Amino acid sequence: MKMRVGQYLIDALYNAGVEEIFGVPGDFNLTFLDDVIDHEHVSWIGNTNELNASYAADGYARINGLGALITTFGVGELSAINGIAGAFAERVPVIAITGAPTTSVEQARKFVHHSLGEGNFDDYRKMFEPITTAQGYITSENAPSEIPRLIQAAVNNKRPVHIHLPIDVAATEIDIKESFQLLPMENAADNELVAAIERQLQNAKQPVIITGHEINSFGLQSEMEDFVKTTGIPVVQLSLGKGAFNEESDYYLGIYDGSVAKDNIRDYVDQSDAILNIGAKITDSASAGFSYQFDIDDVIMLNHHNTKINTEQRTDLTLPAIITSLQKVKYRHNPTVSKRRDTNIQVDTTNKEPLTQATYFAMMQTFLQPNDVVIAEQGTSFFGAYDLWLHANNKFIGQPLWGSIGYTLPATLGSQIADTKRRNILLIGDGSLQLTVQALSTMIRYHLKPIIFVINNDGYTVERMIHGENALYNDIHMWDYKALPQVFGGTDVALHEVNTPQELQRTFDVITANSNQMHFVEVKMHRDDAPEKLRSISKVFAQQNK
Amino acid sequence: MKMRVGQYLIDALYNAGVEEIFGVPGDFNLTFLDDVIDHEHVSWIGNTNELNASYAADGYARINGLGALITTFGVGELSAINGIAGAFAERVPVIAITGAPTTSVEQARKFVHHSLGEGNFDDYRKMFEPITTAQGYITSENAPSEIPRLIQAAVNNKRPVHIHLPIDVAATEIDIKESFQLLPMENAADNELVAAIERQLQNAKQPVIITGHEINSFGLQSEMEDFVKTTGIPVVQLSLGKGAFNEESDYYLGIYDGSVAKDNIRDYVDQSDAILNIGAKITDSASAGFSYQFDIDDVIMLNHHNTKINTEQRTDLTLPAIITSLQKVKYRHNPTVSKRRDTNIQVDTTNKEPLTQATYFAMMQTFLQPNDVVIAEQGTSFFGAYDLWLHANNKFIGQPLWGSIGYTLPATLGSQIADTKRRNILLIGDGSLQLTVQALSTMIRYHLKPIIFVINNDGYTVERMIHGENALYNDIHMWDYKALPQVFGGTDVALHEVNTPQELQRTFDVITANSNQMHFVEVKMHRDDAPEKLRSISKVFAQQNK
Repeated sequence: MKMRVGQYLIDALYNAGVEEIFGVPGDFNLTFLDDVIDHEHVSWIGNTNELNASYAADGYARINGLGALITTFGVGELSAINGIAGAFAERVPVIAITGAPTTSVEQARKFVHHSLGEGNFDDYRKMFEPITTAQGYITSENAPSEIPRLIQAAVNNKRPVHIHLPIDVAATEIDIKESFQLLPMENAADNELVAAIERQLQNAKQPVIITGHEINSFGLQSEMEDFVKTTGIPVVQLSLGKGAFNEESDYYLGIYDGSVAKDNIRDYVDQSDAILNIGAKITDSASAGFSYQFDIDDVIMLNHHNTKINTEQRTDLTLPAIITSLQKVKYRHNPTVSKRRDTNIQVDTTNKEPLTQATYFAMMQTFLQPNDVVIAEQGTSFFGAYDLWLHANNKFIGQPLWGSIGYTLPATLGSQIADTKRRNILLIGDGSLQLTVQALSTMIRYHLKPIIFVINNDGYTVERMIHGENALYNDIHMWDYKALPQVFGGTDVALHEVNTPQELQRTFDVITANSNQMHFVEVKMHRDDAPEKLRSISKVFAQQNK
Repeated sequence: MKMRVGQYLIDALYNAGVEEIFGVPGDFNLTFLDDVIDHEHVSWIGNTNELNASYAADGYARINGLGALITTFGVGELSAINGIAGAFAERVPVIAITGAPTTSVEQARKFVHHSLGEGNFDDYRKMFEPITTAQGYITSENAPSEIPRLIQAAVNNKRPVHIHLPIDVAATEIDIKESFQLLPMENAADNELVAAIERQLQNAKQPVIITGHEINSFGLQSEMEDFVKTTGIPVVQLSLGKGAFNEESDYYLGIYDGSVAKDNIRDYVDQSDAILNIGAKITDSASAGFSYQFDIDDVIMLNHHNTKINTEQRTDLTLPAIITSLQKVKYRHNPTVSKRRDTNIQVDTTNKEPLTQATYFAMMQTFLQPNDVVIAEQGTSFFGAYDLWLHANNKFIGQPLWGSIGYTLPATLGSQIADTKRRNILLIGDGSLQLTVQALSTMIRYHLKPIIFVINNDGYTVERMIHGENALYNDIHMWDYKALPQVFGGTDVALHEVNTPQELQRTFDVITANSNQMHFVEVKMHRDDAPEKLRSISKVFAQQNK
């Protein structure tokens, strides 16, 4: 069939599961955007800036499985680069498309706007190389092969790709033999791996699984749980990847975060004689600065394209193949630990004293509903929220490896658009909100109804905890946060202010009773209050910087 | 003397002329920020996000001669990358400093936050290579040589540099023999060049100078004017670099922008028999899509490190050396054109009809005061403003080569901080404002008093003119713009709404009478109205994208 390259690309994205595309117009992508808005099943989500669009595409992909972003050449793609780098670090597949000057402008090395004015058109693509899993320059000749290759690479590696699309190429009609379909991933069991794991486990008295973000990226939660049910091996999660394992499972112990983990979890893991790291990455923020007591060289490392057992390292196995292999492992453990779920929290919800961080998160536990998406900003919010006990169908979004403050407001825009029916709860702080605040306008524009809790505690608390508690560089300018929705046209957004546990409970009640509305809650807490976990990890970070 | 590397760097920046440093804190720069705030003469300007900080540093450098930016590793520096690329394209010297993980973290290849989680620490520096004129990795050993080299490179090339500063290195005490002092630039006259130019000019009947942005970057306006007075050669400017030549000069013709220039200017230039391009770059947006009628190969090209006369090209001469050489050129032209300044504009300022773009800019001409800084956003604002006649001491800031929308609000933050006493007038539109709106909060935080005109015409007008006049992707979400200052804590900002010429005149009068205050003016104009120049150039851009 005859179609424009632009049409083919959008159609391929749709066939790969993308129904909403984020971005910002620019003259090098305008005619291509016609192909977006003309597509029967794909919608354009116009963002206020490209960084926000990239975060939104990331949040969307974390729910939807794949996201896409369209920006213009230079100014647009470079503004989005931090968001794409975050997607790379945390293994989120985002297709980043740049509408670029025409082939003839490029060949003539013209000094056009958005170029560096020196006749080069290849610089920005190069800048994307370290932070994307594949890159492509589309021509009308290679479009039928390059577009499938790039989308498939993003899906297979759960990482972003960069597509440079000259605007004349997008408009060129080509002959397409068949519409794009995703190929299934390689997931055959590997007998060598099975045998090697069995050898490691055979005499294990206290085995444990550490799991994490790759399980979320590849959507392998239920397969993981099958393996755990079969073998009976207890599971801990890292904060990087919370949601990888069903927290309602009898085999789930809780979050392992090195020295700051609850004693029983910490000791169980640190003293384990067989640790399987399945799709997890032990980062500084996930392990209180690498404060684990086990020998990392003894860990059975099972990551996408990176397995290591004793000294034998392999890069050929996909995570799906690894998980399939696990199903064949013959081993049965009789758990010596029992379920540790402690959600029965006692808080006086009539208390009229100032709200503390500890009480805030304790009460948030009671507010969670079984199908909620919880998005927690990398600050007090994340370090308080990652110890919440999730329901089996909750989804948790954080960004603790990349840790770009401001990420979660646009990410919530994306996650909410990916499923408008699901309740999205955003936990964010004032400093972070200020970076990307205009995403709130986009939420209002598209009639989204997330529940947004903004902690107003007057500054960069996470930084204060690390260094410069009273330093002026950790101060921010005070805003009238509750006035923001109105400014952004959100006349029907419900506004709340919370100072005490009692007010928080009342706000919860109002929100629960009025679910068909966006709720914006300003939560005032003391400047120097912070979740215990943040206090501990901050000290480690301060030490790490010496 | 003994001092920390961080202290030495800040002190070197101060000696090079930097008194305010822009940025955002992050744990990999916190202890280094102590050296900033502890410096006797340097102030920290905390920004709401890194893109805004980079734009602010650019705006600051355009007034001050040099700017500086401090971000954290990864998330911070990559968010600023678009702003640094713009400074590269438009030749603005900005020192971009990244506070990075410690040397020992890097050597151990640890999976720390803000890294890509794969043990590499060199990726981001590489990403800065195409958009900076020099890059450096600071160690305690190389600090005394690298820091001077990098600052000097930025100043000599009027382009940004990237400094990777591990946070432990910043805190290391080193022995400094002498404090940093900028070396003067090479500016000796080149006799060969003088002779070559004289040969080109000797029989010229209709010579003309096209000048542009490099003159602003190198601050060589008065030397340029000396040359013009001596030789009598008429001068046109490109919009890219407006302000390079004194528009009150008898030798100034006006803006040359190819086919859309005023007839007399267009014809004079196009039919010139000796064109000297001095520090100008003929880009698409500055020349209505390269619509000049002269032969570009005949132009005497005089750019920094790039001169070309006939077929002889040289890269050894600095712009200062070129300008010095020009002073030795023996030539005298008796102008056949006379001064064309037409500022005597007739507008009925009692008119109560809806304000048009044409009237808006005609009236803006009357509002300009001799020492104003005018900052014009790349949209209707820039294309309307670049034909304003400036006073000799006006300064004009635009970004027509890089053309990143949203640039000017933070750039005004920077230009106003560079000289708080000077009246700054920002002309911006709604779509652009939305990208970087939080910079308004930073202006309020630091008690700045710019005059901000926001055109509210409901969308990306510059895009509508190019393609998709009624396409939904050119729509933006309507905000209550006048409520923004209040939300950002600006309770003492004067708010104005303008719908008609009469209201604009009254607003001008109020602003002039109340100069010790920030003024925020929402100017409502019709969605499909645009300056004539923008209409013309948009058609060319649409054609260029085919």
